[in-house]
Amino acid sequence: MNSGELDQLVVRIGDRILSRLGLLEPGTRPARPASSGVPAPGALRAGASIAGLIDHTLLRPEATAADVAALCREAVDYRFASVCVNPCWVSLAVAELAGSPVRTCTVAGFPLGAAMTEIKAAEAAAAVRAGAAEIDMVINVGALRSGDYERVRQDIRAVVRVCHEAGAIVKTILETAYLDDHQKAVACAIAKMAGADFVKTSTGFGPAGATEHDVALMRRVVGPEMGVKAAGGIRTLEDLRKMVAAGASRIGASAGVKIVEAAAS
Amino acid sequence: MNSGELDQLVVRIGDRILSRLGLLEPGTRPARPASSGVPAPGALRAGASIAGLIDHTLLRPEATAADVAALCREAVDYRFASVCVNPCWVSLAVAELAGSPVRTCTVAGFPLGAAMTEIKAAEAAAAVRAGAAEIDMVINVGALRSGDYERVRQDIRAVVRVCHEAGAIVKTILETAYLDDHQKAVACAIAKMAGADFVKTSTGFGPAGATEHDVALMRRVVGPEMGVKAAGGIRTLEDLRKMVAAGASRIGASAGVKIVEAAAS
Repeated sequence: MNSGELDQLVVRIGDRILSRLGLLEPGTRPARPASSGVPAPGALRAGASIAGLIDHTLLRPEATAADVAALCREAVDYRFASVCVNPCWVSLAVAELAGSPVRTCTVAGFPLGAAMTEIKAAEAAAAVRAGAAEIDMVINVGALRSGDYERVRQDIRAVVRVCHEAGAIVKTILETAYLDDHQKAVACAIAKMAGADFVKTSTGFGPAGATEHDVALMRRVVGPEMGVKAAGGIRTLEDLRKMVAAGASRIGASAGVKIVEAAAS
Repeated sequence: MNSGELDQLVVRIGDRILSRLGLLEPGTRPARPASSGVPAPGALRAGASIAGLIDHTLLRPEATAADVAALCREAVDYRFASVCVNPCWVSLAVAELAGSPVRTCTVAGFPLGAAMTEIKAAEAAAAVRAGAAEIDMVINVGALRSGDYERVRQDIRAVVRVCHEAGAIVKTILETAYLDDHQKAVACAIAKMAGADFVKTSTGFGPAGATEHDVALMRRVVGPEMGVKAAGGIRTLEDLRKMVAAGASRIGASAGVKIVEAAAS
């Protein structure tokens, strides 16, 4: 099968999924999700509730141990949902957060998604053993764009299996900047089939971050029960509110302190 | 120990290494390396020899199977030293290159260098089992900047051990854009102590790529026998010649075809 045929196949599968979901008929208005996947409107009134939506994130490769420790102190002070750090800092974050309700989130196959499946799974398993409660894995973007959907599913499934066995949740990062809308829809459907807990827009290292369009598309495809995490370029309270309105139930941001302080003022 | 004290320690250790190497006395001119680490001047005259210096590289996360196969065909046609692809494509590259002298190179802990040591080693081991002959690993930049030199050494050492046991070589990527000159010198010394085969400037995903300054510094610190790979932003024959003149013995580039054709014309 050549590249043009693969592209056609992606379009056909995407159309089929969107059609099944009632999203291809013109004028169809998607049902507004109303379950636990989406925060209730009142959740956005208080600063503390906003903090509970945020994964307080520091994934820059040059971050030091001192930077990670400072991030954890902020997360405890502001009651963020989690800190999201690179795997080499999970043990440090877990120690810093001991006794607090803030969870430790880390990444697998990050940010390219191009590691072998067995390594993504081993990375997730090692992180969970070290105390991580949430794993943000990057899908195999190249395999998706090659039309190898089964490979994408097995890749996610391997990570989900080791995480769920240990009680951790999995967010699957699509890196939407590399995908067209059909590919985004397919990736969401695959993540749901593979048992992931969230779909997530972006790594923050790609050519673009979260958009309202992508969050809304992802929410429609996965339905109301699964989580949708918007990440990449969310720097203000206004950005966060737009993402939540579009359907996001979790926000990844390095500007969480600024956002929460804006909400409280 | 606070961040300022760590910085001072980095400077002191860097000074000590540079001093031992005779590079801190003003006016000292470093001996021009003349061993196998550096190509002989004549090596740059013929296009074929230039191709033999190049790791023909495709690490973009959105690359498809078809893109990787095309890269491999170019590598065979132009006789590049290797193809450098993401781990999920190693099996495909090995199959495409079967019967040719072109080696398969891949990456570990890439591009952030912030994976756990055990995962970097497992990733390298899996790649070598799949047929990779060269592993380009990223050092733990954050640990280096935290002053935790022993952690950096053990991280590299773990990868070197599994690769050397299987006959593969290891290039250690410093990601120089995040380091000052003392940190670069320290990282080179640690890579040499850990038994790595090459030091390499950049991932191509960081804020800057290879510079003549960094290649020359790295060549001085590691000496003439170890390899120095310049990568990141090398797009023309002129770029390549500058890097080789500065001490590079291998070039990572996605523009290899254009470079070799410029040399042949």
